[in-house]
Amino acid sequence: MANNKLVIIGGDAAGMTAASKVRREQPEREIIVFEKSDYTSYSACGIPYFVSEKVKTYEELIVRSPETFRNKYNIDVRTQHLVLEVDTDNKKIKVLNKKENKEFWESYDQLLIATGGKAFCPDVKGYDSENVFGVTTLKSGINIECYIEEKKPKNAVIIGGGYIGLEMAEALLERGLEVTMINRSEQVMNTLDPDMGELVSEAIKGLGVKLLLNEELAGFEVNDGKVTSVISNKRNIPTDMVVLGMGSRPNTDFLKESAVELDAKGAIKVNAQQQTNIPDVWAAGDCALTHHLVSKEQVYIALGTIANKTGLVAGGSIAGEKAVFPGVVGTAVCKVCSYEVARTGLLEKQLQKLNIDYVTAKIESRTRAHYYPGSKKIVVKLLAEKNSGRLLGGQIIGEEGAAKRIDVLATALTHNLTLQNIIDLDLSYAPPFSPVWDPVQTAARKLINDI
Amino acid sequence: MANNKLVIIGGDAAGMTAASKVRREQPEREIIVFEKSDYTSYSACGIPYFVSEKVKTYEELIVRSPETFRNKYNIDVRTQHLVLEVDTDNKKIKVLNKKENKEFWESYDQLLIATGGKAFCPDVKGYDSENVFGVTTLKSGINIECYIEEKKPKNAVIIGGGYIGLEMAEALLERGLEVTMINRSEQVMNTLDPDMGELVSEAIKGLGVKLLLNEELAGFEVNDGKVTSVISNKRNIPTDMVVLGMGSRPNTDFLKESAVELDAKGAIKVNAQQQTNIPDVWAAGDCALTHHLVSKEQVYIALGTIANKTGLVAGGSIAGEKAVFPGVVGTAVCKVCSYEVARTGLLEKQLQKLNIDYVTAKIESRTRAHYYPGSKKIVVKLLAEKNSGRLLGGQIIGEEGAAKRIDVLATALTHNLTLQNIIDLDLSYAPPFSPVWDPVQTAARKLINDI
Repeated sequence: MANNKLVIIGGDAAGMTAASKVRREQPEREIIVFEKSDYTSYSACGIPYFVSEKVKTYEELIVRSPETFRNKYNIDVRTQHLVLEVDTDNKKIKVLNKKENKEFWESYDQLLIATGGKAFCPDVKGYDSENVFGVTTLKSGINIECYIEEKKPKNAVIIGGGYIGLEMAEALLERGLEVTMINRSEQVMNTLDPDMGELVSEAIKGLGVKLLLNEELAGFEVNDGKVTSVISNKRNIPTDMVVLGMGSRPNTDFLKESAVELDAKGAIKVNAQQQTNIPDVWAAGDCALTHHLVSKEQVYIALGTIANKTGLVAGGSIAGEKAVFPGVVGTAVCKVCSYEVARTGLLEKQLQKLNIDYVTAKIESRTRAHYYPGSKKIVVKLLAEKNSGRLLGGQIIGEEGAAKRIDVLATALTHNLTLQNIIDLDLSYAPPFSPVWDPVQTAARKLINDI
Repeated sequence: MANNKLVIIGGDAAGMTAASKVRREQPEREIIVFEKSDYTSYSACGIPYFVSEKVKTYEELIVRSPETFRNKYNIDVRTQHLVLEVDTDNKKIKVLNKKENKEFWESYDQLLIATGGKAFCPDVKGYDSENVFGVTTLKSGINIECYIEEKKPKNAVIIGGGYIGLEMAEALLERGLEVTMINRSEQVMNTLDPDMGELVSEAIKGLGVKLLLNEELAGFEVNDGKVTSVISNKRNIPTDMVVLGMGSRPNTDFLKESAVELDAKGAIKVNAQQQTNIPDVWAAGDCALTHHLVSKEQVYIALGTIANKTGLVAGGSIAGEKAVFPGVVGTAVCKVCSYEVARTGLLEKQLQKLNIDYVTAKIESRTRAHYYPGSKKIVVKLLAEKNSGRLLGGQIIGEEGAAKRIDVLATALTHNLTLQNIIDLDLSYAPPFSPVWDPVQTAARKLINDI
C-alpha cells in the first residue's frame, strides 16, 4: 500500500491534515493534492478577523503554503486545479488546470475527497453579483476585504444569523459599516434553544445590529452587476454589500454522477474510518457526514475541528492504521464583540423529535468570583435525561471567560456522565477564574432536583 | 432524626454549606453553629485580592452573614464561640464564649466538625508577632490590610512558594512593597513537576519578586513585639512584615484528646459520607482528609471547592440522604499577575512512589489561534500510564485563557479517559478561544506516540 498513488481533492484542513499524516507514516509514498484555489491549509474560521482587520494580512491565516508542502514535505500540491468528475470504476478523476484552461484525467490508487463546504444561497437572480459574498474560502475573505477597501461600502446586509453571520456582523461593525441582519426564523443561532437564542438577539441588537427576524430572502435588486437592494418577504433593504450566512453545503456537485454515496443534501456518507461506500475512496471534512454520539444519527456539521480530526483519521486509515473517528457531540463556540456563545449536544426540539424524555434548567452565575474585578454574567442551560440524569446538552452565553466552559460539558456528553457526575467533578477554582462552584456545576445542581 | 439537635463547629464554607443543606431538607430542625470569629461563609480564597485592593471591602468576601443565617434560615449561628473539647461518649462539646469569657457544655445529637485549616508555621520564637501573618481566615486578611494601611511597610518576606505565597506576592507587589520569597526546596509550587515549577520561578522573578530557593526559615529576629528580620539557613533578611505561605494544617488541636480518629498531621479521617469513626460525628472541609481518585490514597488538600462539596455531602448525610463524596483528583489553579498555573492528578514523583509506569510530554501552544490578537503562550504537560495510555495528570502554565483548560483534564482523570479519548473529544474551537486543536489535545497527540 505504501507504493500506491494517493490523490487528494482539496488542500485545506482535512485534505492537508490527511496528507501530512500519510507523509509521516509513509515517507516515500506518492501524494498528489488538487486544490482549486491558490492556497492550502488556511484558517477559514479566521476570515471574519481578517475582514475586521484584527488580523492584518491574509498570509497570517495560512498555516502552510503549497510551496512548503512541496519543498518540505514532498507533497505534490497543484493549485488552481479544479476536479470536475470522479470515475471510481476506472479509478481516475477529471481535472481542470485553471491556469492553462486544460482538462486531463489523473489516475489514483487511493482517493481522498476533502473539498469542504460552500456558502449556501437559494437560487435567486443576482446571487453571483460582485458584492455578494460567501465566507467559506480564503479567496472569499480576500474578496470581502478588497471590496471594503476599494468601494468603501457604508452598509451591509447579512442574510442569516448563524455563527458566520454573527462573526461577520462583528467584523463589519468594527469596520464602521451599518449592519442589517435578516433571519428567516424567530431566533438567531438556531443551534441554540429559543430561550438562549433570544439572549443572543438582545445582545447583538445592543451592539447596534439592525435585526430583522422572521424575514426571508426573496430576491436581489441588481444594477450594473451589483446588488443594490435585498428584497425580503417584508421589505426592500437598500445595501452596498451582502454577506451570505445561511450555513454551508457540502462542495460535492462534481460527485453527483459518480458512484460515491451522498445524502439528500450532497454530504458524503462515510464510516468511522472515513471510508465511503467505494473501496479506496475516503472523504473527510466539511464535504462529509459525521456520527453524532448523542443522537446516534449521521449529521452534517461544517467545522474546522471536525475537518482536522476526520482528516487525521482518514490519513491514518489510508496509511494502514486502525484509525477510528468516534464522532462528535455538536460542540461549537462563537464570539460576537464582548459576548461568547457556546453549545454542545442536543436541543429541546431535537430531543422531542427523538422522543427522549428530558428535563432542563437555566442558571445565571458569574465567570469569576462575584467580588473579583471583571467578573461577568454567564447563563448556563443544561438538558438531561429524565430519571437517569444523563447529560444531553448544554448551552452557554456570557462575556469573557464564559464559552470555554462548554468543553467540560462536551467531555461529559461524550462519556455519558450524569448531572451527579458533573457536580462531583473536581473542577478548578480560584477567584480570578470561577465562583467556587463552577457555573456548569451550579446548573447541574439546579437541574438534578428535577430528574 | 429530623428532631435531633445538630451542632456544627465552624461557620465557613463546609459548615455553612452543610447547615444550609440540612435546613433545605429539614425546615424544622434545630441547628446550632459555633464560629470562633465574627464572620460566616466568607471566601478565604479572596483574601489576597482584598489585600491587593482589587476587592475594596472585606464585606464583599462574605456570602452570607451570621444575621442572614439567623434571620432568614433559622440557623442559630453563635459567633465568637470557640470550641475547646469534644466528648463523644456523652455527646457534648465544651465551648468558650469569647465575648463573655465563659465556658459551657453544649449537647448534640449529631455533630459536624468543620473547623477548617490554619497556616502552618514551624515552632519558631516570634511566629506570633504582630507583623507575622497567616492567610487562612478573614480575620487574618483584615489584619494584613490594616497593617499595610497603618504601618506602610516597604517590604515583606513571604515564606513558602505555594498558591498562597504566590497570590500574596502579587497582592503585595500591587501594593508597592518589595517582596522577597524564601522557598525551602529548589522549586516553587511543589504541586507541579520541577520542570513546570521552574517556569513559575522564572515568571515570578520576571515580576520583580526576589526569589531565594533552597532556603529555609531558621528563626525570626524580634524587636518590640515585631519581627524585624527573617533568619534563613543562609542569611538574615531585614523586613517590615512576614507572610506565612508554608501550607495549611487541619485546625483540630481541640480533638487530640477526643475519640475522633485523626491522621499523623491531625486531619480527620472520614468515609465517603463524610462520617468519622464515631457514630453521629461528621467532618468536612479543610479539617478532614479526602479520597484521591487517581492515587486511591487518603490525602489532605485544603481548598474551597472541596470544602463546599464535602459540606454539601455531610449535610445530605446528616439529613438522611444517601449522599456520597467520591473524591478528588487534586485540581488546583492559581493566578500570579498575568500568569496562570493549573494542575490536576499526580506528579512524576508520586507516580514513581506508587510504582506506576508512566510517560510524559510537554508542548507549547497558544491560548487562541496564532493569528488572533491576544493569543498567548501556553505550556501543557501530560502524564499517562504506559501501555494503557490512561491519563494520570496534567499541568498547565500560561497567560490569559490558559488555566481553565485544566477542567477537561480533571474530568478526563475522574472518568479514566485515555490520551486517545482526549484527542477524540469534540472540544470547542473558534479563533478567539483556541487553536483548532486545543492545547490539551496537542499535548495528548504528542504523548500518545510514547505509550
